[in-house]
Amino acid sequence: MFFASDNAGPAHPKVMEALVKANEGYAMGYGADPIMDAVRAQVREVFEAREAAVYLIINGTAANSVLLATMSKPWQTIFCSDCAHIHEDECNAPEFYSGAKLTLVPATDGKMTADDLRAKITGEENRGVHGPQRGPLSITQVTEKGTIYTLEEIAALTATAQEFGMKSHLDGARFANALTALDCSAAEMTWKVGVDTVSLGGTKNGALGVEACVIFDPDIAWEFELRRKRGGHLLSKHRYLSAQMQAYLADGLWLDMAQAANARCAQLAAGLRAHNGVTMLFEPQANIIFFEMPRREHKRMLDAGAVYYVMNGDPETGDADENLTGRLVCDWSMTAEGVDQFLTLLRG
Amino acid sequence: MFFASDNAGPAHPKVMEALVKANEGYAMGYGADPIMDAVRAQVREVFEAREAAVYLIINGTAANSVLLATMSKPWQTIFCSDCAHIHEDECNAPEFYSGAKLTLVPATDGKMTADDLRAKITGEENRGVHGPQRGPLSITQVTEKGTIYTLEEIAALTATAQEFGMKSHLDGARFANALTALDCSAAEMTWKVGVDTVSLGGTKNGALGVEACVIFDPDIAWEFELRRKRGGHLLSKHRYLSAQMQAYLADGLWLDMAQAANARCAQLAAGLRAHNGVTMLFEPQANIIFFEMPRREHKRMLDAGAVYYVMNGDPETGDADENLTGRLVCDWSMTAEGVDQFLTLLRG
Amino acid sequence: MFFASDNAGPAHPKVMEALVKANEGYAMGYGADPIMDAVRAQVREVFEAREAAVYLIINGTAANSVLLATMSKPWQTIFCSDCAHIHEDECNAPEFYSGAKLTLVPATDGKMTADDLRAKITGEENRGVHGPQRGPLSITQVTEKGTIYTLEEIAALTATAQEFGMKSHLDGARFANALTALDCSAAEMTWKVGVDTVSLGGTKNGALGVEACVIFDPDIAWEFELRRKRGGHLLSKHRYLSAQMQAYLADGLWLDMAQAANARCAQLAAGLRAHNGVTMLFEPQANIIFFEMPRREHKRMLDAGAVYYVMNGDPETGDADENLTGRLVCDWSMTAEGVDQFLTLLRG
Amino acid sequence: MFFASDNAGPAHPKVMEALVKANEGYAMGYGADPIMDAVRAQVREVFEAREAAVYLIINGTAANSVLLATMSKPWQTIFCSDCAHIHEDECNAPEFYSGAKLTLVPATDGKMTADDLRAKITGEENRGVHGPQRGPLSITQVTEKGTIYTLEEIAALTATAQEFGMKSHLDGARFANALTALDCSAAEMTWKVGVDTVSLGGTKNGALGVEACVIFDPDIAWEFELRRKRGGHLLSKHRYLSAQMQAYLADGLWLDMAQAANARCAQLAAGLRAHNGVTMLFEPQANIIFFEMPRREHKRMLDAGAVYYVMNGDPETGDADENLTGRLVCDWSMTAEGVDQFLTLLRG
Repeated sequence: MFFASDNAGPAHPKVMEALVKANEGYAMGYGADPIMDAVRAQVREVFEAREAAVYLIINGTAANSVLLATMSKPWQTIFCSDCAHIHEDECNAPEFYSGAKLTLVPATDGKMTADDLRAKITGEENRGVHGPQRGPLSITQVTEKGTIYTLEEIAALTATAQEFGMKSHLDGARFANALTALDCSAAEMTWKVGVDTVSLGGTKNGALGVEACVIFDPDIAWEFELRRKRGGHLLSKHRYLSAQMQAYLADGLWLDMAQAANARCAQLAAGLRAHNGVTMLFEPQANIIFFEMPRREHKRMLDAGAVYYVMNGDPETGDADENLTGRLVCDWSMTAEGVDQFLTLLRG
Repeated sequence: MFFASDNAGPAHPKVMEALVKANEGYAMGYGADPIMDAVRAQVREVFEAREAAVYLIINGTAANSVLLATMSKPWQTIFCSDCAHIHEDECNAPEFYSGAKLTLVPATDGKMTADDLRAKITGEENRGVHGPQRGPLSITQVTEKGTIYTLEEIAALTATAQEFGMKSHLDGARFANALTALDCSAAEMTWKVGVDTVSLGGTKNGALGVEACVIFDPDIAWEFELRRKRGGHLLSKHRYLSAQMQAYLADGLWLDMAQAANARCAQLAAGLRAHNGVTMLFEPQANIIFFEMPRREHKRMLDAGAVYYVMNGDPETGDADENLTGRLVCDWSMTAEGVDQFLTLLRG
Repeated sequence: MFFASDNAGPAHPKVMEALVKANEGYAMGYGADPIMDAVRAQVREVFEAREAAVYLIINGTAANSVLLATMSKPWQTIFCSDCAHIHEDECNAPEFYSGAKLTLVPATDGKMTADDLRAKITGEENRGVHGPQRGPLSITQVTEKGTIYTLEEIAALTATAQEFGMKSHLDGARFANALTALDCSAAEMTWKVGVDTVSLGGTKNGALGVEACVIFDPDIAWEFELRRKRGGHLLSKHRYLSAQMQAYLADGLWLDMAQAANARCAQLAAGLRAHNGVTMLFEPQANIIFFEMPRREHKRMLDAGAVYYVMNGDPETGDADENLTGRLVCDWSMTAEGVDQFLTLLRG
Repeated sequence: MFFASDNAGPAHPKVMEALVKANEGYAMGYGADPIMDAVRAQVREVFEAREAAVYLIINGTAANSVLLATMSKPWQTIFCSDCAHIHEDECNAPEFYSGAKLTLVPATDGKMTADDLRAKITGEENRGVHGPQRGPLSITQVTEKGTIYTLEEIAALTATAQEFGMKSHLDGARFANALTALDCSAAEMTWKVGVDTVSLGGTKNGALGVEACVIFDPDIAWEFELRRKRGGHLLSKHRYLSAQMQAYLADGLWLDMAQAANARCAQLAAGLRAHNGVTMLFEPQANIIFFEMPRREHKRMLDAGAVYYVMNGDPETGDADENLTGRLVCDWSMTAEGVDQFLTLLRG
């Protein structure tokens, strides 16, 4: 009953096997390993983007920060949702790497609208050299609230950005979960709807720790490489990153894992909705659920061994009837039995 | 005959086994995994430092940069040798993380002397607010030239630093190689001779990618954690770092590997010295050799499949008699047969 | 009829005379001039703070940025109003100097409430190393909207900050205008209500270009000096800053000028209120007025030679009846006749 | 007998008059004042560069730092002499603004040679993404040692830089002193010999505090403006900078002042050379002299009221016969009588 995070589960055995297999003999370091050549080809094929620059990096904070720094200038502001990971959970890393600041677009259910984005962009208008200049847009897909932008919504956001000369980044820490939910191609969810760069997550979906940074405009690739190195994010024994990503993408493993996680989440959501006293906060479209339930119920579940975060209050102390928000995340390794166990327990 | 770098060899099977074993079930992320508790205890025992703060990070550039940033202020200068990795090979990462600059102390054979250090420290004297202020000292052990500071030499450097209120960092990317060469304890090579923080390398000595940052004064530990996170260097699935370090330190594996690498290097050095036309540039005290040899000889070796770096000229083009510098590095996995093969080839 | 900004007017003749007088003979540079000793004593007397560290700097952006950087860490967030100068008009300078980010507290009339501040502080709670850490609070007095915090309101804000271990900065670009409006002492408006550092403006109130940075806790003074120098803000011929501030503070000149500006603003506000079709947007408590008026009226005024900013639309183009926001600022040199001329013109 | 620094003397009366005259009525801020239009035209005429971008800033540290930041990237290294002001006397400001590091070229008499520059550039070759990348060259004219590059020497340096794709900056804190000594035009000393940007000093030569930043390639002008603002270096009451520079350049005042300073320096040097026990350290070609003299002689002069810096030892304490280095600087206001007084005193 472990629903705390999708970064707490194990790596997929095939990923681990690939790592073991890669550990043979000598290989040139720093991305010059032959596996990386294969990974580059795989990613380009997945994105139908033959010119794309492809780099690997250890985690999402680094992927986002180095990409956004490459896309922006220190006197600019990066537009993102007010609950974006880059704003709330990266301890100023994007600002550290880029020098830019963040402008927060309201996003109650995790999703910005093009209108709200436009309002924020034009709200800063006409200050000339005095105000921060307009930098890139960063879209999180799956959002932090477990919701998913439609392709039309992404297109509307990036079109708004383009209107003001701004590029668009997609924080895809849960890219595969969105892709499988939308049942579209990687190209359709990115450059075909105006996305310029992607942080393609592996870590939360069955890898040990690897993300691909995909840059559709190779002109900025060399700057990315220098920024990655300067941030201490170029690995010497790079083959261990390459091997993870190779196995992750091979034979659709990444999509299978995301589909499994989403399916478990749907099963869980259905059970929760059927339960008296539970309110869903957002439509769970991928592998994350936010729900409200009285404190006493949270306490009962946690005491019985369920593991998940209660966000806005101590489940141990306070009014037993008060509603608290819980977050449940399913990773690829969650089983239908695990979900059933949780739901059975919930029904008491 | 792969002597290009000690980051091009495989990880030790025991390290890989530990990784596979760690990949079971759920584990809290971001360093809260139980293996990290064991690693912390191991490192403290190795260093005989019960209060030391211990953190893991993916590579040496990150370890050095986050440690030095934690020890310095952006208006200071960090003293290091003029061939230090932090100066030459980290693409400004230490400056990026710290904001400080570097003051280069001459070090022909890779080793600074206390006198040269003092000259550089006092050479910047008396400028008050105008000049960079004195920041920490960074000592590389094993040096970039393959030489090793004696304990007395380290003590003299850190004492000089202390005299001016400066702390000392030890870049121990090849810490184990030095330790086994000096046949002393980790405590003797660090805090007992005045070292305040250590980058304890694993990557170059049989791990996939992990370094321990050891901070003897726990007062600055929280700042280190924030800087690590802000640099994108806190791993979510941290157990995979922990598992590597745990296996690396267990049962003296790290020392065994370093000893093997050093022994192969000694074997190689003996063979080189016996060869007509070869000049050793520095005393190879660990696992790195710099030597001069005519271009034609380099070309012959490389053509025959030896892999190593030629530093100051193209081995393919130019005067066949001109001496060029080669660098040979032995990692833990190099065999006596591999060295013999090289030497046999050299003898022609 | 120049109401565009209080930085567009001349310096007061007494300030200019002091500058001319200071231009005699030799004086040690970088703040070691004897006039600075006098200024330090003046500022300490004005603030009834005998230990305060006092520094001069050329403008408000620099004063705010260097002070806030000295009070914060690069992994923190600085709390300020959503219309603060440090957020909107300094092109990321506070972020550049500090490395920190800004958290915006809603402030419709320019003033944050302690409740809103608390909500923002606790809204970021419990993310440990992942989220930005709590940095200082920055209060703007007079606010960007021309309103003024009461002493009680400042005390409530700083008390809230203190509760969370946060220090408080006061951006006093129009400090004198607030002081004279509140009819209180500088001590009462600052450290007696919990303010730790002050940017004391001179530039907008009759100086050529000088602000005093006042630090009540001298422990951080040396860091301020280094940060000022590192930002290129330590003037060699510092006496010209000192002379301005000396004349500015002498014999209450600064308060006289602020009083004059505020009085002209009150006269102007009274006239505007009496005019049909004008709506005041905020209560003008110092020397700034925001008002709404139909586009046709703005156009008429501007065409007739009035100089001021129209904020949210082009006065030349668009629906003649549409209300647009105008901003009028009175500086010390504005005359009653100048105001009358504007009002007469307005009445048509 | 004040020879401590050329930033300790007064501003020229004509500069002060211009300042007083500029203090009339209203003027738009932030560089939109009409005087700045005149200054721009003056500077362009002086440099025979009709397209040059021209900006004013308060001091040399800021001028150098903002220019170099605009010319470089944070993963680069800036080449300069090992005694450059940007290295020794700006408390890391150039690194702060640019993110780049500095590579020091040896310069015993203050002047780099093209050969030494080339050796430093190529000494960092072939590290790819690992090493700092090549950034701009910064040349100091007059050098910190009081020597002057010939036009040929500058041309050789910038040609070497260009060969490696590097731009060249000229730190002209004492630009006028060099110009008048070389008896050439501003164009001949800058873009005609390959210089891309210039910090044109006013502060050390009769202004209160103003430098012009001259950028021959206007493509980077907007970035300069943003960086200046972000550094807090865009003055609101900008007319007071403009007025200084206007008067400074008008009717050759700047050259007259530099000529006077250089002439007094020549007079002083001749007297020193004639004095037994004095050794000149460098050829004083502008307005700065470094000389050696026994401690007892320094002490005698200082006790008698001469003001100058003794660089490498306490004149009060130590062996009376030991030679110590003194630095004498003549500013525009130094009189022949003042120099005579010093020399008479020296002769005893």
